[in-house]
Amino acid sequence: MPIAFHVDAVAGKARTARLLTPHAEIETPVFMPVGTLASVKGVPQDTLEELGAQIILGNTYHLYLRPGVETVHRMGGLHGFMSWPRAILTDSGGFQVFSLSELRKINEDGVTFRSHLDGSSHLFSPESAMQAQIGLGADIIMAFDECTEYPADTARARASMEMTARWAARSLKYFEDHKHEVPWLTHGGTAALDCPPEQSSATLSETVPPPGKPNPAIPAQSLFGIIQGGMDRDLRKESAERTLEIGFPGYAIGGLSVGEPRELTREIVESTLEYLPTDKPRYLMGVGTPEEIVEYANLGVDMMDCVLPTRAARHGLLFTSEGKISIKQARYAQDKGPLDPNCPCRVCRRYSRAYLRHLYASNEVLAQVLNTIHNLSFYLDTMRRVRHSISLGEESRFLSSVWSGPKPGTP
Amino acid sequence: MPIAFHVDAVAGKARTARLLTPHAEIETPVFMPVGTLASVKGVPQDTLEELGAQIILGNTYHLYLRPGVETVHRMGGLHGFMSWPRAILTDSGGFQVFSLSELRKINEDGVTFRSHLDGSSHLFSPESAMQAQIGLGADIIMAFDECTEYPADTARARASMEMTARWAARSLKYFEDHKHEVPWLTHGGTAALDCPPEQSSATLSETVPPPGKPNPAIPAQSLFGIIQGGMDRDLRKESAERTLEIGFPGYAIGGLSVGEPRELTREIVESTLEYLPTDKPRYLMGVGTPEEIVEYANLGVDMMDCVLPTRAARHGLLFTSEGKISIKQARYAQDKGPLDPNCPCRVCRRYSRAYLRHLYASNEVLAQVLNTIHNLSFYLDTMRRVRHSISLGEESRFLSSVWSGPKPGTP
Repeated sequence: MPIAFHVDAVAGKARTARLLTPHAEIETPVFMPVGTLASVKGVPQDTLEELGAQIILGNTYHLYLRPGVETVHRMGGLHGFMSWPRAILTDSGGFQVFSLSELRKINEDGVTFRSHLDGSSHLFSPESAMQAQIGLGADIIMAFDECTEYPADTARARASMEMTARWAARSLKYFEDHKHEVPWLTHGGTAALDCPPEQSSATLSETVPPPGKPNPAIPAQSLFGIIQGGMDRDLRKESAERTLEIGFPGYAIGGLSVGEPRELTREIVESTLEYLPTDKPRYLMGVGTPEEIVEYANLGVDMMDCVLPTRAARHGLLFTSEGKISIKQARYAQDKGPLDPNCPCRVCRRYSRAYLRHLYASNEVLAQVLNTIHNLSFYLDTMRRVRHSISLGEESRFLSSVWSGPKPGTP
Repeated sequence: MPIAFHVDAVAGKARTARLLTPHAEIETPVFMPVGTLASVKGVPQDTLEELGAQIILGNTYHLYLRPGVETVHRMGGLHGFMSWPRAILTDSGGFQVFSLSELRKINEDGVTFRSHLDGSSHLFSPESAMQAQIGLGADIIMAFDECTEYPADTARARASMEMTARWAARSLKYFEDHKHEVPWLTHGGTAALDCPPEQSSATLSETVPPPGKPNPAIPAQSLFGIIQGGMDRDLRKESAERTLEIGFPGYAIGGLSVGEPRELTREIVESTLEYLPTDKPRYLMGVGTPEEIVEYANLGVDMMDCVLPTRAARHGLLFTSEGKISIKQARYAQDKGPLDPNCPCRVCRRYSRAYLRHLYASNEVLAQVLNTIHNLSFYLDTMRRVRHSISLGEESRFLSSVWSGPKPGTP
């Protein structure tokens, strides 16, 4: 049984919906924190739950190299391995192969690359990327695609888009033939999944209770297709048509945020969305700032992910309702105020800017922990407000000072 | 009004007691996690509260250099600055000056040293160390002492001990003259302290509510004296007598765990304790392993601190009821079991050894966070069991496999 997607409310092009995955029902539009190596850097899983993270993203390339798919599979898949009972999405590995690995060789078969860790040689093909993602056992997995570089001329963008379309068909075929190999239908996951951690936290046992019994109505992973086509609207249209023809339960827009101007990103997103069905989830990969995720949700995007809130936090860059703050600045050294007076997160409730500045300046690990918690809270709250606005039939706006969902002046 | 100390139960030389400080009533024997720079590395304050940490230790040398005493004082003292409502103890700065700084020059006046951060020159004297500790505003502060190196001949140990005794008198004099300068009696702390964070967590305000109204019955800091004397029992006896003659509300045994054999540490602790009053708290500085803190509690020590649980955690060394574990070992790569099947901490309840091993091997920050939480939980639980045993009239034993407080076979 494929993924279920129910649109609940519409406001302009924006919509709120419920996306039913094996491990969780997700309210969209949703922002997905990035947990590259089965950890959202510095944040324990119970804190992610408290923050209201509904779904997190794992990176197939990284997990494939370390700890390896076989290990994760034996531990009950990513859910069991990292003890995360809610939903997980893994990317195809394609983007990281292009951005991180060395000595890539790309041909119709796939991509041969050397590990950035030890130089060992590997092949990612549509088939092996599916095998890896089935073994990792996320709720939503992604077709293997080629992320077209920017800039690229039309011939190059077309050739790349066409290969992505062929790889999409191969990805789907492998997935259909092997989707029963998902961890929770094979060894490792089955028994453990009877025992969600919330119910067993007081019990001490010989094995850690892995989390989350999958929803029996939706036992299978879902494979999403990815639209490419560079910055060319016609190629994007053709990519959408070809990917829809193959047929997936959800569609992603890839190949953006690769260095192009933001106005161009928006244009391509807006035009590509026109060709995607309204009854399927639409996932815009790798964006964005708080302002941008609101903007894209208003355009009709349902799912987004980005390293920005977590990576920026590690550099002391914090998003607040009053704008961005670089907490390392000396001006905050004796600032008793909370990071964001309008933020209800546990960091803003408890700690002063002066303390956060001290932790950062002193290179204390707690700086990364607290900064990341706040930035994620800000992103997740932003999406919560967006959903609330849409449910009231209003598009939401992001104002750089204090903002609320519905536009001022609306009923 | 000085610190209050009530002995509740005695078992052999061991005792349980309540130590009433301005910010918290502490049950002893107590282990104090080390929070060098106003942070127990990697652990948020609410997690420390959940772990049951009653009192934490700050390092005067580090805080004096960064962020500086004046800043901490303006932010309401350490309690307000780091938002920690329970008790805090600061060391005298003496030990760190000897172990970390460069180009020390010691004379009767004090110690001139260069900062390990920027090479700037500073003087720590009994007076300036008291000034710093009053400004930081911990509940318990320590007399400025010289930590005698190991090995030291008798003449050197005597001279050092005698200077520590003279410095103790100067420390007390300065403290008595200036103790009203503590942050919560001057600027910064007063207004804020009306508003403990537990009661105000839902309120968003322009300033972060600093924690913990001091107990009005005990408004003052307490200054503890430190016994030195190297590894010579007679010098230790003389140091105890001279320090007692000056008169403090609590006494620490310093100058141990400086490289001497463990058997010698124990001998000196045991003989020194004979000369300390039973109606005052006794603090053994800088120890030890889980086995040792149980042993010293049985000898009659009330307070201990050590970097071992937090520092070892950062190196993947974890204390469990089944012995020490080096989580980096490949043997744990697919181990589904909890770190310690007998530990109820949030790490052991939720995560497998395989996951913890992966986090450590992948250099993920969450490794440090979770490892530290577990090790602290293990230490704090160990002390909880010790207190329980003593309250039943039993000395407690630490067994390397599963252990409980009372000796097997006792009623």
